[in-house]
Amino acid sequence: MTPVLGIDIGGTNTAFGLVDADGHVIAHGSLPTRGHGSFEAFVEAVRVAVQDCMDAVGIAAISGVGVGAPNGNYFTGNIVFAPNLPWTGILPVAQLFEAAFGAKTVVTNDANAAALGEKKFGRAKDFDDFILVTLGTGLGSGFVANGQLIYGHDGFAGELGHVVAVRGGRTCGCGRKGCLERYASATGIVITAQERLSDPDCNSLLRVHGARLTATHIAEAASAGDATALEIFDYTARILGEVLADTVAITSPAAIVLFGGLANAGELLMEPLRRHFETNLLNIYQGKVQLLLSALPGSDAAILGAAAIAR
Amino acid sequence: MTPVLGIDIGGTNTAFGLVDADGHVIAHGSLPTRGHGSFEAFVEAVRVAVQDCMDAVGIAAISGVGVGAPNGNYFTGNIVFAPNLPWTGILPVAQLFEAAFGAKTVVTNDANAAALGEKKFGRAKDFDDFILVTLGTGLGSGFVANGQLIYGHDGFAGELGHVVAVRGGRTCGCGRKGCLERYASATGIVITAQERLSDPDCNSLLRVHGARLTATHIAEAASAGDATALEIFDYTARILGEVLADTVAITSPAAIVLFGGLANAGELLMEPLRRHFETNLLNIYQGKVQLLLSALPGSDAAILGAAAIAR
Repeated sequence: MTPVLGIDIGGTNTAFGLVDADGHVIAHGSLPTRGHGSFEAFVEAVRVAVQDCMDAVGIAAISGVGVGAPNGNYFTGNIVFAPNLPWTGILPVAQLFEAAFGAKTVVTNDANAAALGEKKFGRAKDFDDFILVTLGTGLGSGFVANGQLIYGHDGFAGELGHVVAVRGGRTCGCGRKGCLERYASATGIVITAQERLSDPDCNSLLRVHGARLTATHIAEAASAGDATALEIFDYTARILGEVLADTVAITSPAAIVLFGGLANAGELLMEPLRRHFETNLLNIYQGKVQLLLSALPGSDAAILGAAAIAR
Repeated sequence: MTPVLGIDIGGTNTAFGLVDADGHVIAHGSLPTRGHGSFEAFVEAVRVAVQDCMDAVGIAAISGVGVGAPNGNYFTGNIVFAPNLPWTGILPVAQLFEAAFGAKTVVTNDANAAALGEKKFGRAKDFDDFILVTLGTGLGSGFVANGQLIYGHDGFAGELGHVVAVRGGRTCGCGRKGCLERYASATGIVITAQERLSDPDCNSLLRVHGARLTATHIAEAASAGDATALEIFDYTARILGEVLADTVAITSPAAIVLFGGLANAGELLMEPLRRHFETNLLNIYQGKVQLLLSALPGSDAAILGAAAIAR
């Protein structure tokens, strides 16, 4: 059977996969999201990369395209005002990818796509009520309740990254202040580190990286026992744990599945996260909500989920 | 056709109605929720009040009982740790009401019942994605997404009153700090007023009520132009508007329907609420979410919703 193309547009990288009917990724590829100038040029770069990938594995045609992207809208097929992408305004994603590939294209929020991927093929297989949280350049989320993805009346449900975690806090790309993703994401944890390092008395392994500091560096320093890096993970986990505990009071999920760059820190994040999450839960929820790391590799959750909608 | 009994157990009053298949309330009644000693004695008082009501209108039998109550659980039929009720621990509501009335009894959260009532008979008829918020002794909520009530994996979804609105804020009946219902409810607005009046320089009409101050008094003073009372409504609306704006980022509803004691203040609450809500919304939601007051009288939304589940 002709495979489907699943595409995951992230703030930094765009990953894609050719997916068969059983949810197997036949071939993978990726390219940087940035540096293409216009969105049209980006779509063309994706087309070329996918064509190269198809040629390499001898696939002649695809039967559909599914795109997961920040602020991707299932109802309109557009990306709308995505603060973590290099293009502004309304991007006609479905229309441009349909033209590029000559195949029907559906669009959804990247985290919604990942939630569907986790539900069909990942750790959320047995859950009808769960939340998928992506901790990448930003923080995305997909909410599943009663076994169905919550799209909301306009297709924009699940913007947990823009729940205000700290009133009057850090300025966000959305123009508001204190949004969760400015604290709990690969970007947010670096901002926290930079704040700590702005204190000249703060003695830390992190100093050596200067302005090139990344979330991976912070995880490495924390693994090496650096007190500042450990405190940064604890702070990040506290802010995330507080908001996740509040979120449980809304949809009461059986589990919250985490993935993305920052989630790769594993127990460095999960140990303090479980602690702060439980401490902040209302008593009726305590001890009942599993915090899980995605077991699907890389961007596969989003690619598989996007492909599943396309099929 | 034999009517169904719908019961709305509130923190202060318990209202009930005999409801026919078309959703008409044939007869109404109510009694105080407090002052009965045990929960068993309360159930017996409800039974007597309902029997009097049935005798008065010549109804001999009911075909089912639906109960809406704070922390009422649809899956277990129990009320569990309800901070605004006079009884503690786990209350076997379905079991005791079934014994009292000899009819099958279903239980749900009072705000979930109200959401179903609004969906079937009220202002949410045309919405598949909306939130119902009750502003009574506490703050309850029912979330509808994809046309279905969100129960969560354990039946405890929709506890918006226990989302933390102010970190480290007022102590809540649930044992945590800063819960929304300690600010935005008939109880919460009185606490705000008492805080303002503890300043001896605060000059306000509200002083005359002393310790007997109620939300209704604050609404009356605000209507009369009392600056303190107006500021109290603005503060209450700001806290509620901030949390509702965050909540929209999760389920993206077409509307939020408000009812309950504090919502009776009408435009005194709604005008500042619309303003603070819009100010705090992420740009993709601005101007799209209707804030509505319930048009169903008194407890009818919850009674009709509870009756609808029972049927």
